[in-house]
Amino acid sequence: MRIALLGGTGDIGQGLALRFAHDTDHEVLIGSRDPEKARDAVESYTDELEDRGVDASVKGFGNEMAADRADVVILSVPPYHVGDTVEAVEDVLDSETILVTPAVGMQGDEDGLHYHPPGTGSVTELVAERAPDEVPVVGAFHNLAAHALSDLDNDLDLDTLLVANDDDAKETVRNLANEIDGLRALDVGPLANAAEVESVTPLVINIAKYNEDLHDVGVKFH
Amino acid sequence: MRIALLGGTGDIGQGLALRFAHDTDHEVLIGSRDPEKARDAVESYTDELEDRGVDASVKGFGNEMAADRADVVILSVPPYHVGDTVEAVEDVLDSETILVTPAVGMQGDEDGLHYHPPGTGSVTELVAERAPDEVPVVGAFHNLAAHALSDLDNDLDLDTLLVANDDDAKETVRNLANEIDGLRALDVGPLANAAEVESVTPLVINIAKYNEDLHDVGVKFH
Repeated sequence: MRIALLGGTGDIGQGLALRFAHDTDHEVLIGSRDPEKARDAVESYTDELEDRGVDASVKGFGNEMAADRADVVILSVPPYHVGDTVEAVEDVLDSETILVTPAVGMQGDEDGLHYHPPGTGSVTELVAERAPDEVPVVGAFHNLAAHALSDLDNDLDLDTLLVANDDDAKETVRNLANEIDGLRALDVGPLANAAEVESVTPLVINIAKYNEDLHDVGVKFH
Repeated sequence: MRIALLGGTGDIGQGLALRFAHDTDHEVLIGSRDPEKARDAVESYTDELEDRGVDASVKGFGNEMAADRADVVILSVPPYHVGDTVEAVEDVLDSETILVTPAVGMQGDEDGLHYHPPGTGSVTELVAERAPDEVPVVGAFHNLAAHALSDLDNDLDLDTLLVANDDDAKETVRNLANEIDGLRALDVGPLANAAEVESVTPLVINIAKYNEDLHDVGVKFH
């Protein structure tokens, strides 16, 4: 399968790219608004993977070209770029392309981070509203600390939470997520349940802020 | 220390009463609007504890009398009774009594449960607004499945999340929570961070709904 990480030069994009390239046989496409930046990132990711003896397939493109070539497109961009990014690639998306969104709207003050969803109720639902109707949208990878992912020496033992209205698309993303070592995907139902999933992101950041012994906090449910 | 569980005949009250009585040396006071109901609950809790060889101090009272005698008052009532219950006991609360609130506002539909906070931003902040100014308020025990607590055969391995503006009160509740075997209290900062903590409650219920192998879901952060 071909997985495109749009905004794949950023923190969470880097983490997911390294994990998919290291732990799975899927082809990883790094997308960026600037294709040159994407190719620089690919060089750095490939170096890191080669140091570990992994000869992975990672390639860099502009966002639209990456999305056009992929089966699964992950919007690893900040929440305020989600709308633009969907718009930039919508012509190359279709019912065969799964659009995955990990972004979360947050606002910070002196107390910590607070969940700040858009008017649609969640960023996940915003993506579904903006994407062409036939494109299946899956919310996933919201609550993973970027640094915990990108440090391949760090053994994961984390859950990621999935929401989608399209069960087949959800199942595909569930399988992909479960292929990352130490990651377990849990089903949280339809897109309407996204807000409580997204709220975990500011929460884990607040937990890291107030508990000295916890960094890059993730979550396990049981 | 004396711990009063107002609404201590309900699910979460039962769970906390049994755990405090079983795992700690603190005195547990069960409060109810109907003192007779409180005493009936005490009889059932005491039987359960005696069967396990624990001769615990558990007593039943009306809510006001339980609150008056306690150092820590836990509002283990449904969210729509939180306001009334604070009003019913406010005359016996003072700066020496810590008021603890585990309640969460939720609304359900066919998709699952959704976080539905009051206008104050969270039930925890609503309690702080309604309580007399000098009474320290701590949000805690929000995300514990009642059945997981009340089944004493079930070994816990769970986190509970604390929010408070009064650091001494928070420390007292942190120590109390940590005395329950298998429970770890994490600091999430001031009351302003309560909404993201409360949101975990509908989330864990949705996770139980959509994942057949998970019941009475709790959470661990690491």
